[in-house]
Amino acid sequence: MKNVLFVLTNNLSVDLIKQQHRMKIKINSLLILMLSLVTLTQAQTSSELKLNEAEHAITVAKTKAKELGTLVNIAVVDSGANLVAFVRMDKSYLGSIDVAIKKAKTARYFDIDTGKLGELTQPGGIIYNIEHSNGGLITFPGGIPIKDKNDAIIGAVGVSGGTIEQDRAIATAAANAIRNNQ
Amino acid sequence: MKNVLFVLTNNLSVDLIKQQHRMKIKINSLLILMLSLVTLTQAQTSSELKLNEAEHAITVAKTKAKELGTLVNIAVVDSGANLVAFVRMDKSYLGSIDVAIKKAKTARYFDIDTGKLGELTQPGGIIYNIEHSNGGLITFPGGIPIKDKNDAIIGAVGVSGGTIEQDRAIATAAANAIRNNQ
Amino acid sequence: MKNVLFVLTNNLSVDLIKQQHRMKIKINSLLILMLSLVTLTQAQTSSELKLNEAEHAITVAKTKAKELGTLVNIAVVDSGANLVAFVRMDKSYLGSIDVAIKKAKTARYFDIDTGKLGELTQPGGIIYNIEHSNGGLITFPGGIPIKDKNDAIIGAVGVSGGTIEQDRAIATAAANAIRNNQ
Amino acid sequence: MKNVLFVLTNNLSVDLIKQQHRMKIKINSLLILMLSLVTLTQAQTSSELKLNEAEHAITVAKTKAKELGTLVNIAVVDSGANLVAFVRMDKSYLGSIDVAIKKAKTARYFDIDTGKLGELTQPGGIIYNIEHSNGGLITFPGGIPIKDKNDAIIGAVGVSGGTIEQDRAIATAAANAIRNNQ
Repeated sequence: MKNVLFVLTNNLSVDLIKQQHRMKIKINSLLILMLSLVTLTQAQTSSELKLNEAEHAITVAKTKAKELGTLVNIAVVDSGANLVAFVRMDKSYLGSIDVAIKKAKTARYFDIDTGKLGELTQPGGIIYNIEHSNGGLITFPGGIPIKDKNDAIIGAVGVSGGTIEQDRAIATAAANAIRNNQ
Repeated sequence: MKNVLFVLTNNLSVDLIKQQHRMKIKINSLLILMLSLVTLTQAQTSSELKLNEAEHAITVAKTKAKELGTLVNIAVVDSGANLVAFVRMDKSYLGSIDVAIKKAKTARYFDIDTGKLGELTQPGGIIYNIEHSNGGLITFPGGIPIKDKNDAIIGAVGVSGGTIEQDRAIATAAANAIRNNQ
Repeated sequence: MKNVLFVLTNNLSVDLIKQQHRMKIKINSLLILMLSLVTLTQAQTSSELKLNEAEHAITVAKTKAKELGTLVNIAVVDSGANLVAFVRMDKSYLGSIDVAIKKAKTARYFDIDTGKLGELTQPGGIIYNIEHSNGGLITFPGGIPIKDKNDAIIGAVGVSGGTIEQDRAIATAAANAIRNNQ
Repeated sequence: MKNVLFVLTNNLSVDLIKQQHRMKIKINSLLILMLSLVTLTQAQTSSELKLNEAEHAITVAKTKAKELGTLVNIAVVDSGANLVAFVRMDKSYLGSIDVAIKKAKTARYFDIDTGKLGELTQPGGIIYNIEHSNGGLITFPGGIPIKDKNDAIIGAVGVSGGTIEQDRAIATAAANAIRNNQ
């Protein structure tokens, strides 16, 4: 959209050379104003997570899991923490279905790497046993928020089935894949 | 935003009368194109439901309830079906807390007046017993989707405590209050 | 009770004219006893938490949150631990909806600052893992009982979204606002 | 079993040279019997539903949904009624996430088209209100068992978001896609 406006402005400038000075200023002001309005609208609007982005993230996650030689479940939720896409790799843990989904939801519920949250929920931790809320949280690594190109959080990915390091690496790769593709 | 553009266009038109014909057409075309782009951006972007809008809706709902001489619980959820605001009027039913919240969620889950949904869930109905999904749905009147000025659904309101006609009227008044205020 | 007092007072009047100093002491003791009974009766009759009080508490909580530069969810429950009012500030955590409500309920379930409860639920603690009861408790700071002017507990407020210190300070401000306004 | 066959075949070879017509008949009978045993063994070993098959089914379902001009949620479960893959098409109902998953589970729990089950769960029906079991069943059309090439049930697909006829047609197309590809 910015490119379209840029081209239009250029064509216009050529014409404007032939026109009176006052008119030129008015039009340029108008263009700048309208451009700001458009930009403002864009900035205020965090993009919605699309299914094809979620599917791309899952493909990246599966590739990463294969690279690391592990088998995982992968869940993607949107900004409302509602499921968008899910896959369970053949022979991965059955118990990881729910863990992956809960990791994704947890990461979006608190806009945080679930592993970071887990540091605070240990015995004596400041939010000990927060896992009892929201129908059950998972607070060890493997849940990562998904950001758009403006750094607005638009969802989260949850991975379960490998070691926590593998799960986190896979989830991170998947989340980055969406951000970089926008 | 549309008003701003309209004024600008008018001022411009006055000036344009003095300018060459070809230039005029080009600028007008440009304005129309840019206006469409802006409108397109708006249309694609459903606005996010804000707390002050939810609070305004609740105020309207309470006033309507008093007018109708009834006592209700009022819940507002956002586009992700997550609770934004809730109030229980003094002496209204305790059981209506959950009913109001479930009505709001149901209305957003299926983007529908919950009473309309209920017509389809009766014995023999095409979606009989769908109430067993999503942790419990409520499918009689009192849940109404909230639309923004572009008719995009941005949440829902659920009302419980009066007759179903009262609940629906109150929820409708609340939903309309948000749309009209945007 | 008023009738009993009337009889006692009448009898007392007759006696008072005829009696000396020793009797006076007795009467004074009686009056003190009766005064205590009246006070006790008042304390037992806790006032009911009203919606407008809950709404006032929420307004105070929002103001306090803004002062502290944080974004929170605020829930108020009544003496029956049932939700009276709730708001989610724009852009605060989605996961805090349930945490705030559970903090308020927990504070009323056990008439305690949820942070105090958390000291007892740690591994080895006397009520270790009580969080598993009541559909999930939250036992870190942010839930505060609401008292009326006679110190009777009439509900609780739960706050989630800031640091635990912020949540507790906001909940305390909200609970105090109700007590001081009665 | 291969070893047994090997021994039998070896013994058989020796014998065959020396024996006459009657023996030959016996052997032929034996071979036919063994062949039946092998076939029976194959039928009992239902193939396991693979992720790539589930993903193929989902692709077919999405294509079918586009053909029909509707937006749906699609869930695939394996023979253990555990989720294998799920997608929510952009702008389809939020409430259909859970309905699609429950349709798939229901179809596998009872190895039946969920619409057929619904005929039996109506008031007065032989399994009235069975929806209360298994954490919630969905008993209207849109859940279809997945069979392998030997007609063994290896999972199920659940579709929600369109009309019940569309949901059933999409689920059927998805289930058939797996069977035909094996």
